[in-house]
Amino acid sequence: MIIGIIGIGLIGSSLARAFRAHALADSILLYDTHAPHMAEAKALNLGTEYCATPEELARQSDIVFVCTPVATIAGVIRVVAPHLKPGSIITDVGSVKTSVIAEASDLIPSGVAFVPGHPVAGTEHSGPAAGKADLFAGRTYAIIDEATPHSAPALKIAALTEKLGAKPVFMTAAQHDAVLAFVSHLPHIAAFSAVNGERKLSGQLGRDAASLAGSSFRDMTRVAASNTVVWRDIFLNNAQPILAACRLFRDELDALIAAIERGDAAEITRRLEQARAAKQQQNESQRT
Amino acid sequence: MIIGIIGIGLIGSSLARAFRAHALADSILLYDTHAPHMAEAKALNLGTEYCATPEELARQSDIVFVCTPVATIAGVIRVVAPHLKPGSIITDVGSVKTSVIAEASDLIPSGVAFVPGHPVAGTEHSGPAAGKADLFAGRTYAIIDEATPHSAPALKIAALTEKLGAKPVFMTAAQHDAVLAFVSHLPHIAAFSAVNGERKLSGQLGRDAASLAGSSFRDMTRVAASNTVVWRDIFLNNAQPILAACRLFRDELDALIAAIERGDAAEITRRLEQARAAKQQQNESQRT
Repeated sequence: MIIGIIGIGLIGSSLARAFRAHALADSILLYDTHAPHMAEAKALNLGTEYCATPEELARQSDIVFVCTPVATIAGVIRVVAPHLKPGSIITDVGSVKTSVIAEASDLIPSGVAFVPGHPVAGTEHSGPAAGKADLFAGRTYAIIDEATPHSAPALKIAALTEKLGAKPVFMTAAQHDAVLAFVSHLPHIAAFSAVNGERKLSGQLGRDAASLAGSSFRDMTRVAASNTVVWRDIFLNNAQPILAACRLFRDELDALIAAIERGDAAEITRRLEQARAAKQQQNESQRT
Repeated sequence: MIIGIIGIGLIGSSLARAFRAHALADSILLYDTHAPHMAEAKALNLGTEYCATPEELARQSDIVFVCTPVATIAGVIRVVAPHLKPGSIITDVGSVKTSVIAEASDLIPSGVAFVPGHPVAGTEHSGPAAGKADLFAGRTYAIIDEATPHSAPALKIAALTEKLGAKPVFMTAAQHDAVLAFVSHLPHIAAFSAVNGERKLSGQLGRDAASLAGSSFRDMTRVAASNTVVWRDIFLNNAQPILAACRLFRDELDALIAAIERGDAAEITRRLEQARAAKQQQNESQRT
């Protein structure tokens, strides 16, 4: 099987490493529009072939993974679509699904399957050197199959991700985007905002507040070091679900703040115990 | 030197372990009002002596560490104050300083020094078994010395914490509470609220959103598993600084959300790049 990967950042380079580590491809073709990424990928020996154009990669691949920032995925598909092999599959790894599917679905030629996907895995690091072969181990891999539930190509992608150690989960694009808005996009918005707020406070006090931070602030803001282009695009392309997630979070935040303001010990306790029980259950289910 | 520790939870038991590991005390006296904690401390061999009452502990100790939840610190000091040795020091480890100092300062007998302190260290675990001898290594230890700047007792506590590997930092109670409200109390409020919001979303969707969470949600919500009594007390006893911190955070959050809502790519980029640069600088300074 010939696997082509377009975009050799954190996710693309991790896929390349993982396919090689698990010996899942006869060839791994790589392309990145950014020349230094291509040079770095070659130096790291991430692929078996480095294509001069995305069209060249598409013409040879049985499966094409589009691993570019969300805003560019449909554009990449538009370029490569006419060159995809009959019987091949094109899939993406974007953190937002509805907007990409709306733009890209009509571009796919007949005889080719589009299987939108999203490995729910990442770190705050970016670029070809940041990838890890085990990035997907134990992680959920969302596969959007609502157009043709459990189609053969969707099952093929699912089986492939399972071989990387991931847990494939089928869902609709709307479900995916609503959930990810809350459990991924919101934590990033909170992290960026907390760091910017801490800078303002430090300016007001004339003292470096962050130097007094313990692990709670460090963990909450870890992802503020993430790639800003990737996250700008995610925010712009999943705006409505993100706004809904932020409203939900803000409602909880406001209610707890209001309880603190009026000194309502019982209500604070109720909210904290509810959260603690849920969190402990989440910790348990991650262990198993 | 005889060190007494009242309250053998995460911090108290870590202090006991650390004093023993660094051979800093001739005796380590322990007291906890909660009998199972006392039994656990004995089973773990955390002290050299286990006192039947806090008064008994106070009568023998050169330094008394009060390591109980914030709301109970002044009450403990009220009980032990008349029994403290002349020339001894009493210190606490509460995460909130202004309210404790206001309640406790007048209770201290002459000839005894009160040095309010706060090791900025912790985990989401609680109880005598959760402590670690190296909990304070590399961490800031705030010492409030505004009543008598750089007094001999304050310098003595600072030197002691330095021997545990901590970095003592002198500051005013108001500065401490404003900074901690932002870099510690706010991350906990955000964590509890994010978990409660995620539970609501999961209910709405009929799908377990947390199972799709990556490391950003896990890290943001890690501390939602923390001791709820400890955190309720911190919230109630530092309400005004916390409300100010939450306003500052909410302003940043609202501005970023508004930029997402109106699709303002330039403003999103500006905010993300500012946060990323600050976070990278924080990561750098933690490494050095």
